[in-house]
Amino acid sequence: MFIVFEGIDGAGKSTQARALSRRLTRLERLVLLVHEPGGTPLGETVRRWVKTRQGLSSLAELFLFSAARAQLVTEVIQPALSDGKIVIADRYVASTVAYQGYGRGMDLTLIKQANRVAAAGITPDLTILLDVTPEVGTERKSARPNPLSGADNFDTAPLDFHRRVRQGYLEQAESDPARWLVLDATAPRARLSREIWAKVQPLL
Amino acid sequence: MFIVFEGIDGAGKSTQARALSRRLTRLERLVLLVHEPGGTPLGETVRRWVKTRQGLSSLAELFLFSAARAQLVTEVIQPALSDGKIVIADRYVASTVAYQGYGRGMDLTLIKQANRVAAAGITPDLTILLDVTPEVGTERKSARPNPLSGADNFDTAPLDFHRRVRQGYLEQAESDPARWLVLDATAPRARLSREIWAKVQPLL
Repeated sequence: MFIVFEGIDGAGKSTQARALSRRLTRLERLVLLVHEPGGTPLGETVRRWVKTRQGLSSLAELFLFSAARAQLVTEVIQPALSDGKIVIADRYVASTVAYQGYGRGMDLTLIKQANRVAAAGITPDLTILLDVTPEVGTERKSARPNPLSGADNFDTAPLDFHRRVRQGYLEQAESDPARWLVLDATAPRARLSREIWAKVQPLL
Repeated sequence: MFIVFEGIDGAGKSTQARALSRRLTRLERLVLLVHEPGGTPLGETVRRWVKTRQGLSSLAELFLFSAARAQLVTEVIQPALSDGKIVIADRYVASTVAYQGYGRGMDLTLIKQANRVAAAGITPDLTILLDVTPEVGTERKSARPNPLSGADNFDTAPLDFHRRVRQGYLEQAESDPARWLVLDATAPRARLSREIWAKVQPLL
């Protein structure tokens, strides 16, 4: 089983991904937790690149994320799924549609092609969207800065960029309600965890 | 004008690219010489990655080369062409078809899609294939090692890989003879330079 957490920065994806992982581990399920674009040496290089370099074209950025994803799928996700593990990812293909497509305004057909190729047929069974407004996301993020991430190209983008990204997530969720769960991420953490568990448990 | 040199390692691409560049410069033409996948900070990072890392999937490699190309086209080639410069490239899209397609056996339709997207409409006016057998290429290369390149993933590939790459170049040249010049790269350097010049001069 492959479960993905999505949402803008500050939505609480990694908190909920870790909580779900712990819950499954307590039930003696084998779980693998990954975060994009990291998770492989190439992915970590791409993460640093995208965070620190200015002047990277949108297209180069799309190809870099796709390279990191292709490597993560081949090297990590696919083998874990074959071993019967439950894979939980912090971001996956929907991030590319939301950020590069809706955010940067790149051609959606092109992005979907790149996603299809990079994902090599590995699609999530469930994508959980932790939905917040950019205002709330930004406030939360600055309240508990992630020591791994400095200001990056996305952090410094205007609020309007993050509004388009959020819209991109919501439209993807609407178009495939059977495989998406949309939650109001301003709800208390414990309640979110319960709602996530209510959706995941029947899939086990 | 955009001129590309292609061929397997040891064919003499950079020697002839530099010779053509000098000749054009003597005629007071503005020339820009680039080599793929380098030419930008991203391109140099990709070059190092592909050379040194084992275990990179073919697909990740294709996306990385495409990222480097997209950045080189946007940042370097397109502005130079707009300024009226003659751009000479050591490798371009035909390398991807030959190495990843014919060499690695990846789907050619996928490679052509990636090339079309990364090249953003910038296609060579002339591609010069310096054709040698892998046996000759390998011998020449070990006779004058490039201080910039250690053994890389392609160097250590079996001879059969390089035979398929050569075949990939020859088939591309055959399918578009008006835009390709195929030369026997075992001919003396000076004669090759004359043959190249005879083709380039009328295009100026």
